[in-house]
Amino acid sequence: MKLLEDYIKKYANVPNENVLKVDCFLNHQIDTNLMMEIAKDLKEHFKNKKITKIVTIETSGIAPSVFLGYLLNVPVVFMKKNNSRIMVDENYHTQVHSFTKNKDYDLIASKKYITKDDSILFIDDFMANGEACLGAIRIIEQAQAHLVGIGIVIEKAFQEGRKKVEEAGYEVYSLARVQSLEKNKVQFVDESN
Amino acid sequence: MKLLEDYIKKYANVPNENVLKVDCFLNHQIDTNLMMEIAKDLKEHFKNKKITKIVTIETSGIAPSVFLGYLLNVPVVFMKKNNSRIMVDENYHTQVHSFTKNKDYDLIASKKYITKDDSILFIDDFMANGEACLGAIRIIEQAQAHLVGIGIVIEKAFQEGRKKVEEAGYEVYSLARVQSLEKNKVQFVDESN
Repeated sequence: MKLLEDYIKKYANVPNENVLKVDCFLNHQIDTNLMMEIAKDLKEHFKNKKITKIVTIETSGIAPSVFLGYLLNVPVVFMKKNNSRIMVDENYHTQVHSFTKNKDYDLIASKKYITKDDSILFIDDFMANGEACLGAIRIIEQAQAHLVGIGIVIEKAFQEGRKKVEEAGYEVYSLARVQSLEKNKVQFVDESN
Repeated sequence: MKLLEDYIKKYANVPNENVLKVDCFLNHQIDTNLMMEIAKDLKEHFKNKKITKIVTIETSGIAPSVFLGYLLNVPVVFMKKNNSRIMVDENYHTQVHSFTKNKDYDLIASKKYITKDDSILFIDDFMANGEACLGAIRIIEQAQAHLVGIGIVIEKAFQEGRKKVEEAGYEVYSLARVQSLEKNKVQFVDESN
């Protein structure tokens, strides 16, 4: 998505070859017009899929997801990250390892809001190692819901996430695919071809 | 706001006289059409104010805020809750006590995204004891930004939040004001007059 790549080029901060900070339009401050454009792109890409629900993970997946939910006229469910290991029967839960923070957390969703009748589009702000996405997939599979697609705003294509998710049997659609962050500079996949 | 009150009457869960659970349209599953209607109501209420930025608190304040930000064509900044007490010079931070969880957390916002040039509308999903709102006010005041208004989706009017925030010198506009949760039933302020 050209507009998103332009935003990343213009506003992202690259402190080192592994970290891409987009606090100024996605992860702390949110550019609401950009979120709507992201939602329109995702709607167009998944237009042939029957979607009954958007699922995302708190916190930064929520903004693009709610615009997409509005455009598709479906609800959004955000999975919660929990460090306290409260295991409640009414929730699905799975353990996820965060490489960024080097710790585990529980990903949780209520059994009421993800069911076998749902056709789910999973949306997240970032994909790197794919651990969060795989955790979300495990919960969606526990619920016996149908996962119709995965939409990612920014993919760090030099990490293993896409490979692992594709090996699990799911396609990944990313709006921006970062090939490299070397020399404090963002290079996209399509630029390196 | 009639539509919101209807949603609360129809979908809210009232396990006891202090707890109002609206997981099914606001705090876990998000009704995106309702969020847009909430944003339209807030836009109308604050139409005479100059607003350069919406500020909210993660997580459940984000959905109504991004629709309002879109309608007003301004960015949204969500303050982060942090338990790890990382004090970084580039952030404003203040300590907030959560009565719900009976613990303290740090509320954090980057100095880059709240500045003295901003005219801020603060939005949150709930107001009960007002501690989160007062924390947000302290950060906005630290930043010497101008706080032009406070919009709350659901106010537990039988708790002290509004009184404390008004004593701090700010007006509160709430879309639904809950007077009582006694006998597992929601009663709104306007119904009890």
